[in-house]
Order: sequence, then C-alpha cells, then structure tokens
Amino acid sequence: MIGLSNYAGVMEGVMNSAEEQQASSPLTDSLSNKQESSQNPKSNGVGGFVLVHAGAGYHSESKAKEYKHVCKRACQRAVAQLKAGALAVEAVAAALVELEDSPFTNAGMGSNLNLSGEIECDASIMDGKSLHYGAVGAISGIKNPVLVANRLLNEAQKGKLSAGRIPPCFLVGRGAHDWAVSHGIPSCPSEKMATKFSLSAYKRNKRKMELAETMETGQTKKRRQSSENGNGSGCLDTVGAVVVDLEGNVAAAVSSGGLAMKHSGRVGQAAHYGCGCWAENACNMNTYSTAVSTSGCGEHLIRTMLARECSSAMQSEDAHHALLETMQNKFISSPFLVSEDRVLGGVIVLRCCRCMETQPSPNIQGILVEFLWSHTTESMCVGYMSAQDSKAKTHISRLPPGTVPGQSLAIEGGVCRLMTVVE
Amino acid sequence: MIGLSNYAGVMEGVMNSAEEQQASSPLTDSLSNKQESSQNPKSNGVGGFVLVHAGAGYHSESKAKEYKHVCKRACQRAVAQLKAGALAVEAVAAALVELEDSPFTNAGMGSNLNLSGEIECDASIMDGKSLHYGAVGAISGIKNPVLVANRLLNEAQKGKLSAGRIPPCFLVGRGAHDWAVSHGIPSCPSEKMATKFSLSAYKRNKRKMELAETMETGQTKKRRQSSENGNGSGCLDTVGAVVVDLEGNVAAAVSSGGLAMKHSGRVGQAAHYGCGCWAENACNMNTYSTAVSTSGCGEHLIRTMLARECSSAMQSEDAHHALLETMQNKFISSPFLVSEDRVLGGVIVLRCCRCMETQPSPNIQGILVEFLWSHTTESMCVGYMSAQDSKAKTHISRLPPGTVPGQSLAIEGGVCRLMTVVE
Repeated sequence: MIGLSNYAGVMEGVMNSAEEQQASSPLTDSLSNKQESSQNPKSNGVGGFVLVHAGAGYHSESKAKEYKHVCKRACQRAVAQLKAGALAVEAVAAALVELEDSPFTNAGMGSNLNLSGEIECDASIMDGKSLHYGAVGAISGIKNPVLVANRLLNEAQKGKLSAGRIPPCFLVGRGAHDWAVSHGIPSCPSEKMATKFSLSAYKRNKRKMELAETMETGQTKKRRQSSENGNGSGCLDTVGAVVVDLEGNVAAAVSSGGLAMKHSGRVGQAAHYGCGCWAENACNMNTYSTAVSTSGCGEHLIRTMLARECSSAMQSEDAHHALLETMQNKFISSPFLVSEDRVLGGVIVLRCCRCMETQPSPNIQGILVEFLWSHTTESMCVGYMSAQDSKAKTHISRLPPGTVPGQSLAIEGGVCRLMTVVE
Repeated sequence: MIGLSNYAGVMEGVMNSAEEQQASSPLTDSLSNKQESSQNPKSNGVGGFVLVHAGAGYHSESKAKEYKHVCKRACQRAVAQLKAGALAVEAVAAALVELEDSPFTNAGMGSNLNLSGEIECDASIMDGKSLHYGAVGAISGIKNPVLVANRLLNEAQKGKLSAGRIPPCFLVGRGAHDWAVSHGIPSCPSEKMATKFSLSAYKRNKRKMELAETMETGQTKKRRQSSENGNGSGCLDTVGAVVVDLEGNVAAAVSSGGLAMKHSGRVGQAAHYGCGCWAENACNMNTYSTAVSTSGCGEHLIRTMLARECSSAMQSEDAHHALLETMQNKFISSPFLVSEDRVLGGVIVLRCCRCMETQPSPNIQGILVEFLWSHTTESMCVGYMSAQDSKAKTHISRLPPGTVPGQSLAIEGGVCRLMTVVE
C-alpha cells in the first residue's frame, strides 16, 4: 500500500479553451483565484462543454498523435450536437461514436480480440437528468456499442413494456445484438471491425501466451507477471466522455473492447453500473452536478466502483483535493485491491454548478464547470472543448519521470464558465 | 413519493433459534435489553449463522409451505458446511445450491423462461474476508450458476493468468457456460432445468403478452400496467443467503432466473456488483462486518445499488433504524426511481461484531449477530439457523393488511450470539 507521500501530483492548471490562455493557478486555489473565461452570451441557450478520453495506458509519441486527433474529432462531434440544441446525453453519445469509430482506440472498430479471436465490446451511458442508465456487455457484430446502450436508456425512459414487463437496462451477448438489430441498429460483420493492428496484436499475444504457458515453475511465473505489468498497460485504452449542456444537465459514457486475450463472455468496467461511468445532476442532496468516465484495468475499476466513488467525492468543497484523495485512498490503496501490486486506471471528471454572484445581468445565467483527469497509468490522452471554441484542445497527461505506474498518480484539470441568455 | 409517515413497519423481534424463545423487544431496543441466547461453547471453533431468502414477492399459502421447506434445507446445508469447518463463503455457496435446486424457486432449476422460451440465469457471490467477487450473467445450461460465480471468485484469488492476464470476475452468456465447463462444472441440458410449472407459466405469460400487444390505446395500456403491478410481484422470487462463520467472516450470495419473459441477454441485479449481494468484514474503517442479499425487481435494485447501500448504512449505531431509513429513502423514495409508481424489492442483512464485555472467560470469544429482513413486496420468505440449532426457523414476512406493495415496507429481525472456545 502506498502512502500519500508517494503521490506524484502534476497540477497544471489547464485553461478554458475559449480564450486559448494558459492557467497559472492550480485547481486547489479558490474559484475566485482561477483564471476563467466566459462563453459569449450570444450562445443563447445552446452550448455546453465536453471532456473526452482515449484511454489511460501507455501512449508512445507515434500513438499520441492519432489519439489526440480522435479526441479532437470526438469533442467537435459533441459540440456540433450541443450547438444544434441536443441535451448532454445525446452529445456524449455522439462523442463516443467518434471514439469507437477510430481504428486506433480499443472500442468499437479496432477493439482488442479475445482469446477466441473475436471482438466482444462493453459500453454504457448515464443521463444525469433522468438518472437512467443503459449498458451492453460482451456484444459482437455492432459497430457502435454505445448506440445500443443509449437506445436501452431511451427505451427504459418510455416506461413499461407490454403486459407490464420492466424494460432492461443491461443486455449482454447474443441477446444484446439481437435486441439492437430489432431496434434498427444495423449489424456489422465482425471481420470489418478487426483491423490489421488488432489482428497482428492478437497473433503476437497468442504466441506470448503459449510461450508463457510452457514455463511452469512458480519462480518463472512470478518474473513473467512482473515484466508483463511493466509493458501490459498499453492495452487499456478504453474511451469515454463527459458532457454538460447549457441547461446544466450532465451525462457520461464509456466504451471498451476489453482486455486483450480476455475469456469470451468477460465483461469489464465499461458495462458495470457505477464502475465505467456515472452522471448525476445537482438535486436537493447534491450541490454539484457530476459526471465521470473511467479507463484502465476493468477488474480494478469494478471492485473499487471508481466512477461512483469519484462522483460522490465531488460533492466536497475542493474538487481537486477530493479527486486526489479518492484516487489515492479508494483506488491505489483501496482495501479491495490489497493483493494487487499495481492498480491501473484513469478517470475524467466534470463538476458543475450555477454561478450566481458573477452574473453580468439578471437574464444571463452562468454555469461554472470544473474539469479534471487523473490516472495511475503511464499516460492518459484527453481532449476538451466548449461550444464556443473553434477547436478542441488535446493533451497527453503523463506520470512524472521516475514514478511507478500503478503506485503513483497524476492529476490535472481546468475551469470553464458557460454563459447563456435567458429569454 | 412516500413520506416516512406512510411506512408500515412490522417490528417483531424474531429470536435466536437456539432457545426457541419468542423475543418481545423490537430491534430498536438497545442490545442489552434484547433477549439473546448464546451458542454452547462446545462448538470449539466451528459454527456460525446463516440467513436465507427464497424471494421477495407474493407467497400464497400453498406456495409458502414449499418455500419454507427449501429455506430450511438451505440453512441446514450451510450449517453442515460450517460444522465441517468451512468458511462463510463456502457455506453461503452451499445454501445457494439448495435454493437453486428447488423447482419452486426462480433460480437454477425451475427458473423463469425468457421471451425466447429459454432459461438464462444470473448469480453472484462476495467474500467479506478477501473482498473478492464473482458473477455470471445470462448463463444457460448450468444447473447451479452460483457455483460458476464461486469458481470465478476462487480463481481470481489465485492471482494472474498466464502472460500476466487479469482473471475475470464477471462472465456472461455462452462464454460463461464454456468457462464453467472447462473448469469442471458439468453442463445441464436446458430442458432438464425447465419444470412443468415454468413451462405452463411461460405459455400463460406469452398469451397474456400477445393479448396486451393487441390493445393499442394509451388508456388501455395504463390500466394494464397497473393491474400487472398488483399481480406481477409474485414472479420476483430470486434467492439468496448471508452467512457469518465463527472466525467472524461474512459472505453473501444471490441467484436468479430473472424476470419472466425478459429479453434474451437481459442481466438483472443478481449479477450486478453492489446490487445483488455485498459482504465486507469489519476493518479499520468499518466497526461491523456486514452481508446483504437482495431480491425483487432487478432494475429497481440495480439503479439504487441496494445491497451496497444497505451494507454501508449498517455501520450506523442502530441497525434496525439504518435499514428502515435506507429502504425508505434510498429505495422507495430514491431519486433514481421517481418515475416508478411501485418500487419492489427485499433484502436480508447480517451485521456482526465481536462482543468483548460479556465473555464468560478470556478464552471464549463471542460474536454478536444482528439479522434483519425488509421488503416492499407483499411477502418475503426467509429462514435462519445457527450451527448449534437442531433445525432452521422459517418465516413468511408480510406487509400489514391494507398497505400498498411497492409503497410501504415491512422490517423484522433478531439477534444471535455465537460463542467459541479459543484454543
């Protein structure tokens, strides 16, 4: 277990992209000290903010470029939806489609192959307004698993099925595929979803596994596992997004091809309620609206229920401190993971509240958006954009040199203020 | 939404079975006022306590007898394991096997058939000692799904697989079935798992559905749904158990055939982490060891994460009050279920702590076990037994007459003291 002294915090204030300005104050400063910028009030009721990730893992320089590019496109797609008046949940689904469609991410197209050489995907989505949730697990032959999760969410909101049957919120395997097709989501041949890269990775992994399985002694096994830990974190590139719209609704989504060489039927955190994503609008009990999406080693994220833990911690006064403590005490040093030598994962987090005191006039409403990411993996690729920005900002966050992945963490973030004219 | 004033509490103090005595004090009394009895110290290191349920739903008088009988056998099976020195997690699995094997429960043998006329089961198990968890969802052709969940839990505790792969904690569908078979759990032809009763229920439900689907207007639909709510709660008879062993370890498990006429691939609360069952031994942060198993409408139990909510509430001083508040505020009136007119479910709960002050001698250790159940369904069938009892006690808890299922709740429980000689 790692004490707080081992924490490697990277506190760069990343700025609201609206002004392309570099923040100097870390998030731990009080809000009034933060460098902020306001959205142009002309937004007039449509707008919002999106933060996406293309996975916590290891991003080489060559990989970084592609990941940044897809994060940028995902942000733009969500913002296009927001500008067209879409709610947060629709915008977050749009961002996920872009992330899934990239052959470079481990989600949708280009997902990791499982032990049997098949692609089985997990995805989930949560709407902070209705608190509805939809998820699919181990689904094959569907290009965009998030669209099935989203459709489940939408159908559940319509109320009961015929004969008083309760609509499902989570479907898996063949049943999930058939449900999707019967709801108008087209099937996609599995061979079209595999890429040259995913197929060659499968062959490489298979050889590695066969080699490993011929080595029998405990000694050898132990060595093998340690070395795998060092290199294996590159394959955890689940994708996700969090969005707030100008009404202040939040939404979150996540999608993953799962661990390479997983057993057929294995479901990871991306389809686990409370583990892959979480979104809750502010209410009587909660001052802040919060949205979280996770990435990393599924079993670690499941057993610590990291998305929900982060969301609930975000009700504390200091968002940065709350996230740091959660990542340290409820993840790296979690009593649920005592037997794990390296705890691998990352999160993106939004928290939002109406800001009253700084309104320029009574008919302008503002939403203060704090956005953060944190990871224990070597790196994490994120992108973010407000509806007023002309382009998205992207960033590869890395653990400081010399720190140990799975035992240390990085945490960064920024602030954005959204303004809207109330008609 | 229902205020606390609508709460229909049934506070019968149900007694430790060792003395076949009727308790007069409700659980809200302080522990010193409770009628308690101690296990005979001759137990000498083996023993414990088990509480099982055969579902929250509606139990007619004719059904009640069968359910009580299977609860009794499940308790005896767990106690036999405890007497043989098994840990809580092994004993809880043994209880579940008995509950699954009954053709009367909606789990394993005799499970509800889905829309396609197939049986697909969910089950999960959690060990409070290691905090490991195993689950299967939508699994077909396996007589005892809980044994696959338990095997997943055991395999995960052994550490990584070859080539550093992380073992799965949740498998679904065909992949789960194949994993089970490759781990020595025999396949069972689906037609052997269906019973005369489940097949005729399927035919009846199918007719009802077809009839309902021919009725098109919203008006009719609304009426149909209300009437279904009244009668439909009989089909929610998921099973589960919670156990504490004499070392003070807790474990919980749950198993279900899911909702009748569910879509193929639908996974309910029994395979959702934090929703179907939860178990956590006492630790630095938790005074009490707690174990919870739930039953009822899967989607309601999932969205409220009821098992984990109950477990965490059990760290409050007054167990009865904490459970009552949780069922009221985090279930019936949950912000996650505002659109539901009736919130249907039930829980069984154990909480345990070492009792120091009342030890007759320094080499005798005692564990104080508080056991409770609560439900919003018309009835719930439970059984419980300590390792010193010659037979189990069983009970059908019912909502008081005139109260509305899904809007009111019943809560009952008792206390048991376990004693063991420390060698």
